[in-house]
Parts: sequence; C-alpha cells; structure tokens
Amino acid sequence: MSNPSLLILAGDGIGPEVMAQVQRIIGWYGDKRGLNFDVSEDLVGGAAYDAHGTPLHDDTMAKAQAVDAVLLGAVGGPKYDDLDFSVKPERGLLRLRKEMDLFANLRPAQCFDALSEFSSLKTELVSGLDIMIVRELTSGVYFGEPRGIFEEGNQRVGINTQRYTEAEIERGARAAFELAMKRDKRLCSMEKANVMESGILWREVVTEVSKDYPEVALSHMYADNGAMQLVRAPKQFDVIYTDNLFGDILSDCAAMLTGSLGMLPSASLGAPMENGRPKALYEPVHGSAPDITGQCKANPSACILSFAMALRYSFDQGAEADRLEAAVEKVLADGVRTADLMQANDGTPVSTTEMGDAILAAL
Amino acid sequence: MSNPSLLILAGDGIGPEVMAQVQRIIGWYGDKRGLNFDVSEDLVGGAAYDAHGTPLHDDTMAKAQAVDAVLLGAVGGPKYDDLDFSVKPERGLLRLRKEMDLFANLRPAQCFDALSEFSSLKTELVSGLDIMIVRELTSGVYFGEPRGIFEEGNQRVGINTQRYTEAEIERGARAAFELAMKRDKRLCSMEKANVMESGILWREVVTEVSKDYPEVALSHMYADNGAMQLVRAPKQFDVIYTDNLFGDILSDCAAMLTGSLGMLPSASLGAPMENGRPKALYEPVHGSAPDITGQCKANPSACILSFAMALRYSFDQGAEADRLEAAVEKVLADGVRTADLMQANDGTPVSTTEMGDAILAAL
Ligand SMILES: CC(C)[C@H](C(=O)O)[C@@H](O)C(=O)O
Ligand SMILES: CC(C)[C@H](C(=O)O)[C@@H](O)C(=O)O
Repeated sequence: MSNPSLLILAGDGIGPEVMAQVQRIIGWYGDKRGLNFDVSEDLVGGAAYDAHGTPLHDDTMAKAQAVDAVLLGAVGGPKYDDLDFSVKPERGLLRLRKEMDLFANLRPAQCFDALSEFSSLKTELVSGLDIMIVRELTSGVYFGEPRGIFEEGNQRVGINTQRYTEAEIERGARAAFELAMKRDKRLCSMEKANVMESGILWREVVTEVSKDYPEVALSHMYADNGAMQLVRAPKQFDVIYTDNLFGDILSDCAAMLTGSLGMLPSASLGAPMENGRPKALYEPVHGSAPDITGQCKANPSACILSFAMALRYSFDQGAEADRLEAAVEKVLADGVRTADLMQANDGTPVSTTEMGDAILAAL
Repeated sequence: MSNPSLLILAGDGIGPEVMAQVQRIIGWYGDKRGLNFDVSEDLVGGAAYDAHGTPLHDDTMAKAQAVDAVLLGAVGGPKYDDLDFSVKPERGLLRLRKEMDLFANLRPAQCFDALSEFSSLKTELVSGLDIMIVRELTSGVYFGEPRGIFEEGNQRVGINTQRYTEAEIERGARAAFELAMKRDKRLCSMEKANVMESGILWREVVTEVSKDYPEVALSHMYADNGAMQLVRAPKQFDVIYTDNLFGDILSDCAAMLTGSLGMLPSASLGAPMENGRPKALYEPVHGSAPDITGQCKANPSACILSFAMALRYSFDQGAEADRLEAAVEKVLADGVRTADLMQANDGTPVSTTEMGDAILAAL
C-alpha cells in the first residue's frame, strides 16, 4: 500500500516558518514510528497571487482534491490589502473550503494547564476549559447568492445572502452530534431564531437530527447570548454547533478565552473519499501575523497540533495524536515559551525552531 | 409649553418590576427638579400578545410615534416560545425600531468601579472600562428581503438577506463619529470586508464619512478579530461602529465583559422630529429574566440608567443625567446590592424596591 499523501500549503506571513517545524515532526513520525507520508508542497494566498496572479491556482486546487489531507499555514498580509476582492488571499482559502466541500470546521478551544494564567479571564473560569466548536463551513452568508455591490437609484447597495438548506444544516449537525458522543454528550446549537428565518430552520433541523442521538443532551441558545455565556462561564459548554458566520465570531471569541491563540489548531472535514478518509484541511486558528513575520518568533504549536488533528481525523492514528499532544503539553509544563506565551518580564523566549526542537525532544 | 411626553412600555417578565422604579425616579424629577413629564403606558411583547393577539398594537405604534421618547422594559418569555415567528414578542420591539427608524443603537459597556471584581475578566483589564458601541439598528440581515423558509426541490431552504445602502451606513457612521468627538476621538469600525461585499461597502462609506471628522482616529477591524480583541484587551476601544447583526453579538459580548449586565442601559435614536428631539427609545440591555420574574429581585439600575440616557439624549438635560448616574454609582459604592450583584456568600441582597429606595435617597 502506498503512503498516505499530504499537501502542504504554507501560505503567507509566519505560515512557512511554523510549517517548517511541522515538516520536522512529519519526518520524525516517518523515522521513529514508521508512519511515512508522501508530502508535496504548493502555494496559497498572497504567495500564490505573487506567483500566478490568483490566490489558488487550478493545479493546486486539483492537487488538494487528490491528496489525503491538506495542511495549511496562514493566508493574508498588508501587502495584499488593496487587491480586488476576487483575488484577495482569503479567496484561496475559501475556494479550498468550498470546492473540497469541507462542511464541518472543528475548532477546539482548550486551555492548557500551564497557560491558564494567560487568559484574560480569571483562572478558575478557564482552567481545564475544553470546548469543541463545530462551525458549518461551506454555506451561509459566506457563499450565498445574490451577493455584491449594486447600483440602486442613485446609490450603491451591499448585499450578501444567508442561505441554508436542510441538508447543509443536517450534515454539520451529524458531525457535531458524533463528536458530542465521543465527549461529554452535550451539544448547544446557536442561531438567531428570534430574528432570522434561517435560524428557525436551523433549530428545527438540529432538533430533528437529535432524535438519532438520544444520549446527547441538546440545548439551543441565541448567538448573542452565546457570546455572553462564553465570556461569563465558558466551562458550561461541551460541543457547540453553529453556522459559518456566527461560528467565525464565536470560535474566535472562544479561542481568545483560552489566552493561548498560538496553541489552537483546527480541522475542516468533508465527506468520506473512496478510501474512507474524509476530505480534510488542517490549519492553525491564528493568522499570518505580519508583525512578527521573518523573525523566527512565531509559536509553531498550533500548526503542529493541527497535524495532530490530521493524525486523529484523517489517519485514524488517535494514539499517535495523543502522543504529539502530550509532547506539546510537556514542553509547556517544562516552561518552554515562545514570545507569545510570555508576560512582560518573564525571561528570554525561545525561537520557532527551538520550540520545534523541544517538541521533538519531548516526542 | 407642555411637558415632554414619555410612553412607557414595560413589557414582559421583570420589565414591569424594574419600570416601577423608573416611575418613582420620574416622579422625583417632577417633584424636586421641576422636570415634569406626561407619562402614558401601554403594552408590548408577550403582554400585548395576550391582550390583543399581536406583540404591538397599531394604536401603541401610533402613540410611540407621537411621544418625545419611549421607555421599554423587556420582551419575551418561555410562555411565548412556541408562537409563530410573526407574533413573537421580539417582533413588537423590532417593529418599533423599524417604524420609528431608530437607526443608531447606543450601547455603553461601562465597568462600574464598585463592581469591577464581578467581571469574569481580570480586574485590571476591565476596571475603568468605558466603550460606546454604536450598532446600526434598522437594516442589515434583520430586515433585508427576501427572507423566509422556502421549498426548493424536495427540501426547505432558510434565507435571510444582509442589505445595506450607502445612506444607511452613512447616517449611523455620522452618529458614531459625533459621539467619538465628545469622547476620546477614536472610532473602530467592524465588518467582514474580507468575506462580505456588504462589508466592503461598509468600510468604504465609513472611510468617506471620516473625512468630515479629521480629528477622529478611524480604524477598521474584522468582526471576528473584534470579538477577540474585546476579550483580550477591551480598554483599547473608545467608540465601535458596526452593523445590526455584528452589533447584536459584539455588544452583548462587551456588556458581559463588564460583569454587570444588570447595570447597562441603551438608547436607540432616529432622526430629529419637528421639535428638534430625535425619535428615541430607551431600554436596558438585559432581557425579561423569566427565572426571577415576580420575585422583586431584579436590579432596576439598567432601566433607571436608560432613563438617564433619555435625559441626556432626548431632553438635553446632561447635568440631570449626570446626577442620576452619580446617584447609582454612590449606591453601588455604599455596597447596596441586588442579588445579581452578589457573590455566593456576600450577605443579604436588597429587593428591586429597596434598590429604588436607595437610588432615590442618593438623589
Ligand atoms: C481568513 C478568513 C476568510 C477566515 C474566515 O472568515 O472564515 C478566518 O477568519 C477563519 O475563521 O478561518
Ligand atoms: C430581542 C432581540 C430581538 C434583540 C435583537 O436581536 O436585536 C436583542 O437581542 C437586542 O440586542 O436588543
């Protein structure tokens, strides 16, 4: 049997720096654990625009469709701020999500014991925090038509369309219920059913799906209250299921609660391919961080933990994923800190490479 | 000259309880400061539905259009959860906002010194916090057409439309810039211009309006990053301007940061009427709190401070508004606490009426 295949799209800003450390981890798994991957690399985002005038070349799209999993670094940067909407770095990422049909975006918001004092929240409110947000990723206002800026009378109108079919809501809900079954069996669905009809349909469909998961306790919350409750008492949640736009905001809010954005991975999963593996893209929650690009300061942990999610969700290597996650936790417990994990007067931070060294050593 | 007129719509849940205390405050201003108001009362929300089968009777709508300011308590409750969308309590509130054309929703997120330890955030991050969120309130996905649940092939589709005209973005922006001029002269506009064309138009129009306010430092932030930054370092903000839906979520998030939801007022303002006063509705940020309804436990402060906003924005009585706000702050400093302002083992809370007594005494 041939090796599983990985496409690395390191992208912009700190993307290539953190991805270099992931490459070392991948190498380690080949050398030490006999887990070999066929790794190819390509461009996405601003880097692709610079080379090809598009944030995602059709050839790259085809490669992404063909591999077992895509690992993405980050896209965007001030250099590309004035580009036309259609060729902005973000469009490359959105095209990958849409054409690979990655409908379930898994965003764990987890507070690492060694880092709980980094949260802006009081330590007792976040220590041990472990939420899984499942965000619908291929529909809603991100992709609905009509969209655009139109002339109307003597002025312009900006239009976007929130649009959800029952099938779209349902498949994401199933992914969320499946995760809840493996966790604490509690699912909170968030929308604005008091204001939006798409939210009413959302609530109905999720309620319907819940009949297939009688062990999971389902609750519903308006998204504005969801934002409040995340800030007030985040530990009340286990799995949260919400739409593309609410998910964008609420998952960032939840990520920041942990105080360790440089630590948080994500997985975007689609339907099973012929080989049974889901279509999948893994990426850190943090962005391209133009302010520290090229300084070898970035924390590679989020990107490395995204590879751990790949081991778990794409390659059925849960034990190896646990091993990698434990190595990262050990490094934190040992007090190894990149600059993002330090308070003002905390001593000298380690570099991106040194963090990679430490994680490899812990493995 | 006749007295200025107020319409009180106490609504549901704790609405009538907290509004009773506002009535006493209004009485005090008449007796002691010669500020007399012609006060009328009517129904909204579930209370209106129970009486008339609609969450806002046309007569009530007409009264609201005719008065100088509307004071609203709260709408909604579990009793009405299964009502049809078109007659839900919330529709009454949304109709008031839309037909009175209250486009600028002012939501201060302020942390009271005496209460800074109530925040789930570390005290130093929120003490002295004073943000003003200006939320566009009459357009966007709350009101855009088409909307509804439609049959498409063999399944249903939920659709809502985000729609903003230049004029709508502009008038809200002017309100926000005017407020920034009276405050710290910093305005942060939030949208998702990287994903939504309506966000691109938003950013363009706000940038254009900023030319008329050269003293105000304008910045732009994606709404997801906005949620993060609110949690990470809320004191970086002065005035935030954002759309109806982002504003709903971000203002609730900001409100919760202060830890004192029972303290936060809001104003919803429209265009000037013939007498020069803006169309206006004032309401607390908190909801109808069905869990404590009828127990005389609710904190009337948010509703009382909403009346203070009415004094300031509708009746040009800034000094009297300051007086009322100072009275509330004094009561807090004296340690008077309703149940929502207490930690587990803090002694006995005062009742809604006793809180009203204390504020009256401090006046
Ligand atoms: C970069 C951007 C298009 C993206 C989004 O809005 O989905 C990002 O914020 C995210 O959450 O992955
Ligand atoms: C009650 C509801 C319709 C309302 C809204 O969504 O605007 C509320 O959440 C608010 O923020 O005033």
